Amino acid sequence: MAKKPRTAITPTRSEDYPEWYQQVVRAADLAENSPVRGCMVIKPWGYTIWENIQKNLDRMFKDTGHVNAYFPLFIPKRYLEKEAEHVDGFAKECAVVTHSRLEDDGTGKLVPASPLEEPLIVRPTSETIIGEMYSKWVQSYRDLPLLVNQWANVVRWEMRTRLFLRTAEFLWQEGHTAHATSEEAWEETRKMLDVYATFCRDYMAMPVIQGEKTASERFPGAVSTLCIEAMMQDRKALQAGTSHFLGQNFAKASNIQFQNEAGELEHAWTTSWGVSTRLVGGLIMTHGDDDGLIVPPRLAPSQIVILPVLQKEETRTQVLEYCEKLRQRLREVYWNFGPLEVEIDKRDLRGGEKSWQWVKKGVPLRVEVGPRDIANDSVFVARRDTGEKKGIKTDEFVANIVATLEDIQNNLYQRALKFREENTQEIDNKDDFYNYFTPENKKKPEIHGGFASAHWDGSEEVEEQLKKDLKVTIRCIPFEGDKTPGKCVISDRPSKGRVIFGKSY
Amino acid sequence: MAKKPRTAITPTRSEDYPEWYQQVVRAADLAENSPVRGCMVIKPWGYTIWENIQKNLDRMFKDTGHVNAYFPLFIPKRYLEKEAEHVDGFAKECAVVTHSRLEDDGTGKLVPASPLEEPLIVRPTSETIIGEMYSKWVQSYRDLPLLVNQWANVVRWEMRTRLFLRTAEFLWQEGHTAHATSEEAWEETRKMLDVYATFCRDYMAMPVIQGEKTASERFPGAVSTLCIEAMMQDRKALQAGTSHFLGQNFAKASNIQFQNEAGELEHAWTTSWGVSTRLVGGLIMTHGDDDGLIVPPRLAPSQIVILPVLQKEETRTQVLEYCEKLRQRLREVYWNFGPLEVEIDKRDLRGGEKSWQWVKKGVPLRVEVGPRDIANDSVFVARRDTGEKKGIKTDEFVANIVATLEDIQNNLYQRALKFREENTQEIDNKDDFYNYFTPENKKKPEIHGGFASAHWDGSEEVEEQLKKDLKVTIRCIPFEGDKTPGKCVISDRPSKGRVIFGKSY
Repeated sequence: MAKKPRTAITPTRSEDYPEWYQQVVRAADLAENSPVRGCMVIKPWGYTIWENIQKNLDRMFKDTGHVNAYFPLFIPKRYLEKEAEHVDGFAKECAVVTHSRLEDDGTGKLVPASPLEEPLIVRPTSETIIGEMYSKWVQSYRDLPLLVNQWANVVRWEMRTRLFLRTAEFLWQEGHTAHATSEEAWEETRKMLDVYATFCRDYMAMPVIQGEKTASERFPGAVSTLCIEAMMQDRKALQAGTSHFLGQNFAKASNIQFQNEAGELEHAWTTSWGVSTRLVGGLIMTHGDDDGLIVPPRLAPSQIVILPVLQKEETRTQVLEYCEKLRQRLREVYWNFGPLEVEIDKRDLRGGEKSWQWVKKGVPLRVEVGPRDIANDSVFVARRDTGEKKGIKTDEFVANIVATLEDIQNNLYQRALKFREENTQEIDNKDDFYNYFTPENKKKPEIHGGFASAHWDGSEEVEEQLKKDLKVTIRCIPFEGDKTPGKCVISDRPSKGRVIFGKSY
Repeated sequence: MAKKPRTAITPTRSEDYPEWYQQVVRAADLAENSPVRGCMVIKPWGYTIWENIQKNLDRMFKDTGHVNAYFPLFIPKRYLEKEAEHVDGFAKECAVVTHSRLEDDGTGKLVPASPLEEPLIVRPTSETIIGEMYSKWVQSYRDLPLLVNQWANVVRWEMRTRLFLRTAEFLWQEGHTAHATSEEAWEETRKMLDVYATFCRDYMAMPVIQGEKTASERFPGAVSTLCIEAMMQDRKALQAGTSHFLGQNFAKASNIQFQNEAGELEHAWTTSWGVSTRLVGGLIMTHGDDDGLIVPPRLAPSQIVILPVLQKEETRTQVLEYCEKLRQRLREVYWNFGPLEVEIDKRDLRGGEKSWQWVKKGVPLRVEVGPRDIANDSVFVARRDTGEKKGIKTDEFVANIVATLEDIQNNLYQRALKFREENTQEIDNKDDFYNYFTPENKKKPEIHGGFASAHWDGSEEVEEQLKKDLKVTIRCIPFEGDKTPGKCVISDRPSKGRVIFGKSY
C-alpha cells in the first residue's frame, strides 16, 4: 500500500493559505473556473451545499412572513441611473447587453446585430427594477408592508475573482421590503440581520459579529448597512451578509408612494438584504483543515457515508446487504427537517483511497462495514471533525446518531468561536495596533493579529490611513460589546466606543 | 350587497380565449409584464406554483439518479458556433453582452465602455458551455454516465411574448447527460420524457401525449426530439416539455471523448431535456374556468383557505380561535411530501369580495367558519373544481381531507382527459381535414376542431403546406396509438401510421 500522506491537502493552511483554499475546493470537487472570465461552475457537491443553505434560509424567510417572487434579469440603463450613488457604485463593473441578435457579416463571421435602443444591464442587484414594480403595486397603507424575496443570479464584473468568494456571476437571494414607517423598516433591517446570524450559528456553525458598517463601507444608496462578519482561519474577516436600511432614497428614486391613514401621500421606507454563494467560501475557510473540507452536519449533502469493505468476493453480498439495511435504518431517522442523507460508496477502489476521498469532501461521519464488523454486529466509525475512530455496536450507533451529529455541529461552532476569541484583541495604542496588523513574515502577509477591538474617532481620515498603511478596515461598529467612550487608537481624538478592525476578503 | 357577477372573469373563454387568459393571470395575481421588453415579473402566487413544480420535479430527477449543478449565464460566441445547426437556431434571437462597464461620455451621459474582446451570449440553452466542461470531466468510461441537471434562467429574444407561454427571459431546468453508448443515451431520453409525463399527470393533472417530433420541429442540433403535448381549452396544443437525443453531435462539437473498456477513444452520447415556467401557462389553460384559475391540490400554494365570518365584534375572538384550531388540525395532516398548506384570511373585507378573490386564485377548498357553524361544530366548504358547496361536521371534514383533495386532483385530470378525447378525431380525407381546422367563425380563429389523428407521408412538403394553409403542424408522432400503415390524408402517398396534427402555442 502507498504511504499515507501526512496531510491530504498540499500546501497546508500555514504553508500557503490562499493556495490551500484553492486546493480544498478542488479536492472536495466543489467548483471550478469556467472558460467565461470570472464565472465559475458550481459542481454537484458544492451545489448541494448551496441547495441546503437555500432550503433552510428559505424556510426562515417564510417563517418571518416573506414570500418569493421573480424579477427580470435585465435592468434598463435609465432605471439604474435613478439613484445617483447607486449607479456610481455599480456602473464600473456591469455586463451591458447592447444587441439582440448575431448575424453573418458577409464573410461568414457572426457579429452582434439589431442594436437595442437602450442598453440593458445584467442585474448587479435589483433595487431599481423592483422599485419600479413596487411603485405600481403600492397605492395605500393597506398594501404595506411588502415582504418579498428573490433567489437569483447577479453579475458584477470583478477583475480579480476567486471561487465562491468573488466571482463575476454569483447566486444569491435578495430581500426587498417596503414599509409605511421608518421604525418598521428599521425593525425589518435588524430582524433579517438576526435571521442571517441565527442561520450562520445554527446551520453554518459559523459565529458572526453583528454590527453596522461605517459610511464609507455602505451599500451605494443606503442610509445604513448592517452586516455580519466572520473570522476565517487566516484571521481575515469575511463579510457574510448585509441588511440595508434604505430610508426613502429608493422610494423617492422609483416613486413608491402610498396614501397613509390620514389620506396623505407619503414615500415608503424600504430595505434590502442578501447573502450569496460566498457563504460556501465562508464554510470552507471556517471549518476546513489540512485534510480538506469539513461540512457541518446540518448542511452536509450526506451526513453519513457507508464504506463497505468488499475485498473478498464471497462476503460481498452479505456486506452490501448489511450496509443497505443500515442505510434504511438511518434514513428513518428524521433530523433537520428531513430524513438523514446517507450514501453507500460501492465503487471498486482501494479502501484507503475511497476513505480519503470522503475525508476531503468533508462528510461528517464515515462508517466502515466489513465481514468482521458484521460478525460482531458493529461498525467502525470515523468522525471528520475530531478524527476520532472507533468500533461501536451498530444498534448503539443508530440509537445515538442524532446526538452524535449534534455534537459534531456544536463542536464545529465552539471551535470556530474559540478561534475567533483567541484572535481578537483590545488594542489601545497606535504602535500596538500597527504591530498587530504587520505580518512578522513578509512572505506570509496573511499571518497577522486577527480582529482588533479599538476606539475610533468616527473620521474617514483614519479609515483611509489604515487602509493605505495596513490594508485594514473597520469591519463593523458592533451592536454588542464595550460602548464606553474613549480615545481613538490612531488619532487620540474622542471616540464613542470600540469598533472591530480587521483585514478582509 | 353588490350583485354577484355572472362570471368573475370577463371576457369568458368562449367570448375571447386569449384575452380570458390574460385576465385570469391578472385576477389570480400570477405575473405581469415588466418595463423590460418581453421579460415578466412572476408574482408571489405564480412563483409559489413554480416552486411547487420545481420541488416535485427535482425530487423525481434525484430519484432517477440526477444531481444538480450550476453553469455560467454567459456563453462565449465561439462555443455557440461549434454546432452549426445549433447556432443557426439561436443566433436570431439572443441577448449579446458587448461591454463590461458604463462610463460618462463627457456630457454626463452614461454609455457602454470597455468593449469585450469576444461578445458573450446570455444562454438561450446550455449545451455548448456544459459540453465544454464535460470534455474536461470525462476521460474514461468510468466517468460515465454524467447525469446533471441545472435550474436556471435563460433568454431568447422573442418578438411576440405572452406571460408564461413565451417570454424573452424564462425560468427552466435543463438536464444534460453524457453516456458511453447510444442505447444508454436513448434510454435516458425516453426515461426523462416519462418523468415529465408522470409529473404532468400526477401533479399538474394535465394529460399529455408522448411522442417524437418530426425533423422540421427538432431542437437545433438534436438527432431526435421527444416531446409531451397537451391540449388547452381552446383545443390548441401546448408543447409542455422536450427530451432530446443528441447522438454524438454535441460531443463531437465539444470534444467529449472517453476511453472505453477496450482502451479506445470514443465520443460520448449526450441528451438534454427541459421544462419551463411555460408549465404554469399550461396549468392555467388546462384547468381555469370563467371564474378564474383552478390549481390542482398537489401544486397549490394553499390547498385550503379558511374564511372566518367576522361581522359581529362579540364573536370575533371565538371565530378566530376556532379557525386557528382547525388550521392546526389540518396542518398535522401529512400529504404530498409535507404538511397541508392552510391559510386563514382575516382581512376586513366583505365576505363576498374575499371569497371571490380566492375563487379567482384557484384555491382548491374554501372553508367558511361563522358563529352558527361553530355552534353546530361544522364548517361550510366550497370546492373550486365543481363549485359544490355544503355544510359538513368539522370532524368529518378533517377526517376526509386527504380523500377530498385526491378526489379534486383526480377530477381535474379526468375532466381534462375527457376534453382532449372529445376534441380529438381520426380524419381520413383532405376535405374533412381542412374543414376540421377551418374556423366556422372568422372572428374567433381559435375555435376549430382540436387534434386530428391522421396519416402522413413523412414529407416536409405536406408539413409546409399545412402550416401555410391552416397554421397546423404535426405535434408529434405518438408512441401509442394506431401504427397501421395507410395513406397520407393530404397527399395520398403511403404512410407508416397516424400522427397528431394540431394548432399550437
